[in-house]
Amino acid sequence: MYRPQNLRIPGPTFVPQAVLAASARPMINHRGPEFAALMAAITRALQDFLRTKGDVLLLTASGSGGMEAAVANTLSSGDKVLVFVNGAFGDRFFQICRAYGVDARRVDVPWGRAVEPDLVRDELAKEKARDGAKAVLVTHNETSTGVLNPLKEISAVVRESGRLLIVDSVSGAGAVELEIDEWGIDVCVTASQKAWGAPPGLSMVAMSEKAWKAFDRSNLPKLYFNLQTYKDALDHGSTPATPANTVVIALQEALRLMAEEGLESIIKRHRDLALATRRGIQAAGLGLFADEAHASPTCTSFRMPARVDSRNFMRVLRDDYDTVIAGGQGKLEGQIARVGHMGFVTLQDMLGFLSALELTLKDLNQPVEAGVAITAALRAYAEATQPPAKTPVGSRR
Amino acid sequence: MYRPQNLRIPGPTFVPQAVLAASARPMINHRGPEFAALMAAITRALQDFLRTKGDVLLLTASGSGGMEAAVANTLSSGDKVLVFVNGAFGDRFFQICRAYGVDARRVDVPWGRAVEPDLVRDELAKEKARDGAKAVLVTHNETSTGVLNPLKEISAVVRESGRLLIVDSVSGAGAVELEIDEWGIDVCVTASQKAWGAPPGLSMVAMSEKAWKAFDRSNLPKLYFNLQTYKDALDHGSTPATPANTVVIALQEALRLMAEEGLESIIKRHRDLALATRRGIQAAGLGLFADEAHASPTCTSFRMPARVDSRNFMRVLRDDYDTVIAGGQGKLEGQIARVGHMGFVTLQDMLGFLSALELTLKDLNQPVEAGVAITAALRAYAEATQPPAKTPVGSRR
Repeated sequence: MYRPQNLRIPGPTFVPQAVLAASARPMINHRGPEFAALMAAITRALQDFLRTKGDVLLLTASGSGGMEAAVANTLSSGDKVLVFVNGAFGDRFFQICRAYGVDARRVDVPWGRAVEPDLVRDELAKEKARDGAKAVLVTHNETSTGVLNPLKEISAVVRESGRLLIVDSVSGAGAVELEIDEWGIDVCVTASQKAWGAPPGLSMVAMSEKAWKAFDRSNLPKLYFNLQTYKDALDHGSTPATPANTVVIALQEALRLMAEEGLESIIKRHRDLALATRRGIQAAGLGLFADEAHASPTCTSFRMPARVDSRNFMRVLRDDYDTVIAGGQGKLEGQIARVGHMGFVTLQDMLGFLSALELTLKDLNQPVEAGVAITAALRAYAEATQPPAKTPVGSRR
Repeated sequence: MYRPQNLRIPGPTFVPQAVLAASARPMINHRGPEFAALMAAITRALQDFLRTKGDVLLLTASGSGGMEAAVANTLSSGDKVLVFVNGAFGDRFFQICRAYGVDARRVDVPWGRAVEPDLVRDELAKEKARDGAKAVLVTHNETSTGVLNPLKEISAVVRESGRLLIVDSVSGAGAVELEIDEWGIDVCVTASQKAWGAPPGLSMVAMSEKAWKAFDRSNLPKLYFNLQTYKDALDHGSTPATPANTVVIALQEALRLMAEEGLESIIKRHRDLALATRRGIQAAGLGLFADEAHASPTCTSFRMPARVDSRNFMRVLRDDYDTVIAGGQGKLEGQIARVGHMGFVTLQDMLGFLSALELTLKDLNQPVEAGVAITAALRAYAEATQPPAKTPVGSRR
């Protein structure tokens, strides 16, 4: 029997058929005119979506590769930096710094909570005693916990301090509000398989003028990730080494679909579907893991019922209901589950997930009334998306 | 009008429809059981084709990324190494060493000539004065010139010296003779878009036991390219960061097609088609660039007629005859052209190229008799592939 999967991990995300089909077009020369046109179009579209006039470079690597490029291209060994960690990806930024001999001070925030702008301000003040951190590294959307850090406010604090701001928006960009130029973000990293709805294999790295000045002083070793070579190659419509060009073609198609919807609609869709998902999960009797004031629009984490291991829960969900979600990472393994609503996601996708959730809980002998999660989600979605109440005509003057 | 391209650059190579279609299958979870089965099957197939029982790790990166991983995982800053350079990719190995602060001595060999085992022996002897090189880095198939270095003989010399042998076989492996274990190669790098006939995006790195011992002592910074994390993740059927999984699926299909043909047949097909291609090019009045004693089975470089710039030549070939080849790299730009016969290449592909070559030369007012290149290629191919003459029955005793 044909059993399509509802792929609801927080990346790779579901890839539309049109995008997959684009990736299966005949192979082309990555040094030829077709590819140059492709690179020019993609770069313009990415600049539009990332709200920047600066450089956006396309690396053949995962998002983690892009994060490493962000560090290796702007910092030097022994540089003092401040890394805010409220999940597994904040920790990865710290590990990258450590691997490269950057003197990183990590500020830990409990997983599930946000990095607050006041904390950033206080920690930057403490840095004066250390002779000042050169850069601040922060995660935008912490995929491991489902927390969206308040990047706009954090950026304002960092900008005021004059420090370089390096942001991992791997699972945020393209789905949530992000104004690279206006907020003053210097380096911003994202990846093709997240909100962009393309297959994995590409990481996009945006660089500000200030980031390029930092590049000039940076002494960390790099060749494959040397962003200057990507910038130079892009001027000739190519990349320094052979790119994952089937993924590049797929990304162009995904960007075309995104442009049809428009960034504002995309952002609202993610916010509304995230809300509906949270209400559905809660109605099924499960607790949300992340602070709801900073709940991610692209990924929701939730707690398991007592005596249920999330690995067992996910197995039933997958084997019996063809729904694939992710478990907890690192210290949260077994304790939480995470569902993605990122990229080309629809209300139907999330209702499908919630119905599978209800059935799985029932199979695991958990008390859940049939349809309760779906009903709650539909209600929340309707409220979020209904047009604003019209002022009665009679009240006008 | 439908005008299919005869993509004859030395990578990315032509990708069969079955392989492209595999890459367009619905997205899957890179941490799930389907992906684990895929990784296990691919690893076994790669070990078979690379003739090794050691680890073969799959990185989401181009071949250059794999080369950088080879250096970063086995060497330390200040390590003395010997790099043999007879083309642009040998130079890239040297540049990677330099970027990482490895004390590399380069031995240049004229482009178009091979690195001879005697040269390697002599240069290793000189290393005694420098307190001994720790490793030797060498290109197997130099894509920029179309030279196949005699790796078997070079390996014997290096093995005798006890040095670590790090090999770039990006455009050789899977198409030419390569015995990683038997020859004692410690690190060997290849890439999906070359002889493997899959889309670009993956680099495969084979590591010997001795290479892992070198890993333990290596102090060069790495995280994305840290091969230990790939080995650990592979034990769980996955990769440390999100892999280019559509390319992984495509690679599995390509490996399946290759297994149907068998490695021995693949190697002979490449050798025979390379010979036919060279004879065709010569019959058209063009000179071969590389020393024919070491001509590459996967890529042939040839000289332009007097007063013809290869960029113009390639433009006519592409625009009027839908045939895409590559030009000279680095110092050879404009002087030579390079045609790939790598991966899923057939006699018909090369006859198509040779007919386009004849027509292009005619358009550029070069004297060439119609069909002369094709005829010569067919004759060479027939001689190379005809069954050995049967001993007359009467002579048996």
